[in-house]
Amino acid sequence: MIQTEQLLQTLQTEFDQSTYGDHPDELYEPIRYIMSLSGKRFRPLLTLLSASLYSEHWEHAVKPAMAVEVFHNFTLMHDDIMDKAPLRRGKATVHEKWNENTAILSGDVMLIKAYDLLLDIPKDLLRPVLARFNQTAAEVCEGQQLDMNFETRWDVTEEEYLEMIRLKTSVLLGFALELGGILSGADKTSTQLLYDAGENMGIGFQLKDDLLDVYGDPEKFGKQVGGDIISNKKTFLLIEALSKADAATRLELEKWIELKKFENQVKVKAVTEIYEKLDIRTFTQQKINDYFARGIDCLEKLPIADERKQVLLQFVHQLVEREK
Amino acid sequence: MIQTEQLLQTLQTEFDQSTYGDHPDELYEPIRYIMSLSGKRFRPLLTLLSASLYSEHWEHAVKPAMAVEVFHNFTLMHDDIMDKAPLRRGKATVHEKWNENTAILSGDVMLIKAYDLLLDIPKDLLRPVLARFNQTAAEVCEGQQLDMNFETRWDVTEEEYLEMIRLKTSVLLGFALELGGILSGADKTSTQLLYDAGENMGIGFQLKDDLLDVYGDPEKFGKQVGGDIISNKKTFLLIEALSKADAATRLELEKWIELKKFENQVKVKAVTEIYEKLDIRTFTQQKINDYFARGIDCLEKLPIADERKQVLLQFVHQLVEREK
Repeated sequence: MIQTEQLLQTLQTEFDQSTYGDHPDELYEPIRYIMSLSGKRFRPLLTLLSASLYSEHWEHAVKPAMAVEVFHNFTLMHDDIMDKAPLRRGKATVHEKWNENTAILSGDVMLIKAYDLLLDIPKDLLRPVLARFNQTAAEVCEGQQLDMNFETRWDVTEEEYLEMIRLKTSVLLGFALELGGILSGADKTSTQLLYDAGENMGIGFQLKDDLLDVYGDPEKFGKQVGGDIISNKKTFLLIEALSKADAATRLELEKWIELKKFENQVKVKAVTEIYEKLDIRTFTQQKINDYFARGIDCLEKLPIADERKQVLLQFVHQLVEREK
Repeated sequence: MIQTEQLLQTLQTEFDQSTYGDHPDELYEPIRYIMSLSGKRFRPLLTLLSASLYSEHWEHAVKPAMAVEVFHNFTLMHDDIMDKAPLRRGKATVHEKWNENTAILSGDVMLIKAYDLLLDIPKDLLRPVLARFNQTAAEVCEGQQLDMNFETRWDVTEEEYLEMIRLKTSVLLGFALELGGILSGADKTSTQLLYDAGENMGIGFQLKDDLLDVYGDPEKFGKQVGGDIISNKKTFLLIEALSKADAATRLELEKWIELKKFENQVKVKAVTEIYEKLDIRTFTQQKINDYFARGIDCLEKLPIADERKQVLLQFVHQLVEREK
């Protein structure tokens, strides 16, 4: 049976060999740069793992899987401009290293190159796959717009937040799994289960991001623990805390949010204590478990032999247990 | 025979009925806004005129023709951010009316919607058309990057300038014509001739833009005559003047370029006089005539009855003679 490492190795070789274009260099160099910032590549890996469920021949899914990763990195390049983010995976973002115009235009070409990679799909599948890709891509933009809208609102509900991360993050994970299934000839019931698995796990994955930012092990997390608290980022934890707090606790939380001058560690400690008091950690962990369980349930329902699912399920369990 | 007005009317009705998406409104409203700023729609019109050369049934080309126009407007939305342009067709640009983030993200969705409109293409043609569209779209971005690179250079050659406008403007006109041919079943020789016609006319068209900015009739031009001179825009005229001038004239021209404080009319008059002295107007007009002649020559070579070409040729002659 195919192993995750072999698929990752194939993807890495393909990405290393991609130039995306050559002239003018100012346009294509930022693409090679962002694609080289060792991301986890788990979106294209999901596509290949899902293609492997139905066929020994996962190679035909490599280029389309790469399209998902190139698209994902296009959204990162443009989101980083919008969020004025200085760093991405510990390195300067494209708009910082070059400038905003470069990040806009190189991002645009990346989206076009993602579509170009999808042209590797057989004729009979091209239109249905592109229709789903277009829908997914538009939804990711809708999620980013909602995220920006939320920045100036303090009454975002749990339901709104979950819908935002569903669009911004989860639909692409759903599509990544669905794509592998479609390319390997899975039936409609299976591709829907694959999509649902990815969508649910994507929400669990994003909530885990929110949780790790507060409760991650500083040795393993790789980023500053408490970064979201320091910057008042509207995470699931903060939204839940604001909604569950009694009047006095809410006032205290708002005091920390509005405070302009503070010591980072003091604020992180104080807000974390409020989360503890309101049992936000347990509540969030329960939500994460629920979404992952729903996702795994979808995979278990797939009408194929259990032993074929082992590699994918193993990988999913790694995602569930990740500590960074 | 189908008339240009009828095609334009059909396009206008289709554009008026397009919402592009609905939620969140912040994402889709800017698309409806830019699409409503009465552009000339001559790119999709070229597609429909070219489809009409080979078939009475041009209706099947409407959605793909709209894709070309949506793509074109996507490039305008992003180019306006990069150029910090406050106005587009006399109205506030999207990044001015909303903000830069909105213009980036709405533009991204527009590009996705352009691809969605292309899905209307029959299965057998979808992949070859998308391959050509991807190539064209990437070239347009390459042209914009070259244009930005040129801003800080004073040694841009005629050859480099023509290559830049070929990529930034002409390849899309070429594709617009080629697309109509492909969709109506034209053979490879014909679609190549259609592309070449559009590419040549596109260069003529852009050079005419440069010429009209200096020599347009203020009553008809609709923009401030001399705007390019005032802003030192690197047009064909300026590049030719810099290359043809003797040492003394070049010094005088550079003096005007470097001058920080000046009266607009005085600078426009002085630089125009330098152009006159160097015969730049005649030289540019000759180039424009050459490119249009080459384009029309391609259309005349199309292996179809002359009377079928009349409507397209008539429209092309309007483009040649336009005064704004």
